[in-house]
Amino acid sequence: MDLPAVVINFKAYAQAMGARAVDIARAAERVHDETGVSVVVAPNAVDLVRVREAVDIPVFAQHVDAYQPGAHTGSVLLEMLAEWGIDGTIINHSEHQVNFSWVEYVVHRAHELHLEVIACAADDAIARAVSDLQPNAVAVEPPELIGTDISVSKAKPEIIRRSVELVHAPVLVGAGVKTTEDVKKAVELGAQGVLVASGVTKAKDPYKAIMELAEGIIRALP
Amino acid sequence: MDLPAVVINFKAYAQAMGARAVDIARAAERVHDETGVSVVVAPNAVDLVRVREAVDIPVFAQHVDAYQPGAHTGSVLLEMLAEWGIDGTIINHSEHQVNFSWVEYVVHRAHELHLEVIACAADDAIARAVSDLQPNAVAVEPPELIGTDISVSKAKPEIIRRSVELVHAPVLVGAGVKTTEDVKKAVELGAQGVLVASGVTKAKDPYKAIMELAEGIIRALP
Amino acid sequence: MDLPAVVINFKAYAQAMGARAVDIARAAERVHDETGVSVVVAPNAVDLVRVREAVDIPVFAQHVDAYQPGAHTGSVLLEMLAEWGIDGTIINHSEHQVNFSWVEYVVHRAHELHLEVIACAADDAIARAVSDLQPNAVAVEPPELIGTDISVSKAKPEIIRRSVELVHAPVLVGAGVKTTEDVKKAVELGAQGVLVASGVTKAKDPYKAIMELAEGIIRALP
Amino acid sequence: MDLPAVVINFKAYAQAMGARAVDIARAAERVHDETGVSVVVAPNAVDLVRVREAVDIPVFAQHVDAYQPGAHTGSVLLEMLAEWGIDGTIINHSEHQVNFSWVEYVVHRAHELHLEVIACAADDAIARAVSDLQPNAVAVEPPELIGTDISVSKAKPEIIRRSVELVHAPVLVGAGVKTTEDVKKAVELGAQGVLVASGVTKAKDPYKAIMELAEGIIRALP
Repeated sequence: MDLPAVVINFKAYAQAMGARAVDIARAAERVHDETGVSVVVAPNAVDLVRVREAVDIPVFAQHVDAYQPGAHTGSVLLEMLAEWGIDGTIINHSEHQVNFSWVEYVVHRAHELHLEVIACAADDAIARAVSDLQPNAVAVEPPELIGTDISVSKAKPEIIRRSVELVHAPVLVGAGVKTTEDVKKAVELGAQGVLVASGVTKAKDPYKAIMELAEGIIRALP
Repeated sequence: MDLPAVVINFKAYAQAMGARAVDIARAAERVHDETGVSVVVAPNAVDLVRVREAVDIPVFAQHVDAYQPGAHTGSVLLEMLAEWGIDGTIINHSEHQVNFSWVEYVVHRAHELHLEVIACAADDAIARAVSDLQPNAVAVEPPELIGTDISVSKAKPEIIRRSVELVHAPVLVGAGVKTTEDVKKAVELGAQGVLVASGVTKAKDPYKAIMELAEGIIRALP
Repeated sequence: MDLPAVVINFKAYAQAMGARAVDIARAAERVHDETGVSVVVAPNAVDLVRVREAVDIPVFAQHVDAYQPGAHTGSVLLEMLAEWGIDGTIINHSEHQVNFSWVEYVVHRAHELHLEVIACAADDAIARAVSDLQPNAVAVEPPELIGTDISVSKAKPEIIRRSVELVHAPVLVGAGVKTTEDVKKAVELGAQGVLVASGVTKAKDPYKAIMELAEGIIRALP
Repeated sequence: MDLPAVVINFKAYAQAMGARAVDIARAAERVHDETGVSVVVAPNAVDLVRVREAVDIPVFAQHVDAYQPGAHTGSVLLEMLAEWGIDGTIINHSEHQVNFSWVEYVVHRAHELHLEVIACAADDAIARAVSDLQPNAVAVEPPELIGTDISVSKAKPEIIRRSVELVHAPVLVGAGVKTTEDVKKAVELGAQGVLVASGVTKAKDPYKAIMELAEGIIRALP
């Protein structure tokens, strides 16, 4: 993925599932086409293939299991993503946390398969720790702000500042991020983009919501 | 799904992933078309949509999470299956065991969505327990035989017999099942079919392997 | 344990930890000595040994792992309980749910070690399912009432009635149970006692709180 | 704990359970008394209190849950350790791995309670990551060597060297460590001690086994 970027986690929202996942991904691509801002979509595992065939922007999984192919029932593996041209995966989201060895395995295997990994972290100390395992980017999201209307940019600017300072990888930030101003501020503090979810998936007009976020990146850049 | 049936769990086998998943599903459909025997395929979550569009036989997921749609990252939900016309799900496979409330939720919600559930069990006592939660079928697989060349039909016929007697749902059996004779014997003992994996996914010719299993059902029936 | 009984789950409450765990256990024993009502205490794993040496009433663990002794770090096993004369364990509490094989293993191994098992269930269907795995008793606790002031006896008498009817083991009930009347009603509906927690552990006077519950058993019996 | 140290993880070994746990702890104390070498014991949760009352050397738990006191059934918390004068805990052992937030919580809360934390890591990259969360020591154990007769000192000296270099905390090493020479070499490579298990718990004479390890520390030091 190109950075800075707006990364959209569709989670398991009904509004971002099935045909609606494809629609939101198309809206994301339209914003990218019109603005040049990098936009990445992360639909649920079942929708990945449909979204992949519908758009040319990067498509990421939300999570993968740390297994090699074989006798594992009900798992999502990096190799499955590679089969259909998926570009990468999020890992260690606060709603699906994993242990250190898991992150290490996923990063290592992803890179062998030429896939990218965004590793999530709840704060700057964890952002630093997770970055030691060499993901392509770290997304810092204070869990207490996820899904709220209070953005990390306003409520916890010091977490962004410290993360950018400590982390040896590009830093994305998330939680409560919804406005042009939220994104602009995050990028001005050194972030390489944002990780968003409900702000887009629950928006009446996802295209407009994504455009508003992309504007924040445009305005923050010289 | 119609019973008796041959249910094929693709697991996370490299041989049954991506385009190969679609090929095996097509082979399964061909066996169904030629013999009239019910064949069900359970590819991994990422491949579900591609398999669904390729075949008309029932397509099941291997596992689902027990959540309502919403802020859950990296989960596979029944609602995602319903979006694309997937027919049902396996649950509680020995490689992905869940608790009682999880099975209860999945069965309840699946039935609301007109999806079917095959709940797995390691032995006849668990088969009975899991059947109290009213899945459409129970698949009994002694874990120590899974992936081996020793079939449950030969090694543990009493588990099949007791399961059929105790369980208030159709009983499938699995583990080590590979030959016409294995399937025939299971059906003669009262099973309504078989749940298989490596016997098909690792076969040089999956079509032949599935055909051999289907023959067991034909020969067992009057 | 003798039934009917008042079973007290100390959980991880600060009020029922360390020396306070021993005090509450002594209060429980005093109620037993004065009334003849069976009272069982379930302190946390660390406190088990101290409570065991302090009282003669039955002492249960709150949970055990389903492992054989060996290379498992940070687990609590039935064999550890047996070493110090602990009488049994709770399993599958709604705050620590496990899968079917886990319950089956724990019940089987507990009985080999002459320990008893109380298996928890969220409703009557799960109570029936879990009882198929042959615990000594099943404790039915609707999770939405746990820790509240609304007792299962008042809010969901039909769950007690149906559980008693369906389950092939003595039925305890819990969630919101705090008064003599709550216990009396539960026993009149066929329960063999109650599983309580915050009602005792958070009481100003645990002795009084336990006595009140014991009275419910006395009044319900002829 | 004083460093360098020999830390003994009793795991769930039958040989290190109940009264035998107390015996091994006494042997450990005897080695400490006779040599001055720091020896730390980590018995299972149920045995902690008995071991604590029997010896004056540091006693650690093998694992704790990342919860505050309250409605948690079947958990072991730091507060429970503090009640009885336990000195600290191991966390993230390869047999009980946890996520980043879990380690962060445990370290933070332990320090508030004046308890110490040894965080485990499978290799030097994870050792570095986990050390960002500020445990008192990091124990590096390549999982493939745990429980074997091949010591990390011989098979993977570079992991010790790199860990010592990368980690901002004292480094312990483990896996296959059984002889004076294994310990001596580890300390010479910069380790502040060893984390051992089966080498002591399964030894015919635990006292002799611990003494042999302690000798390694003595010989390595000037």
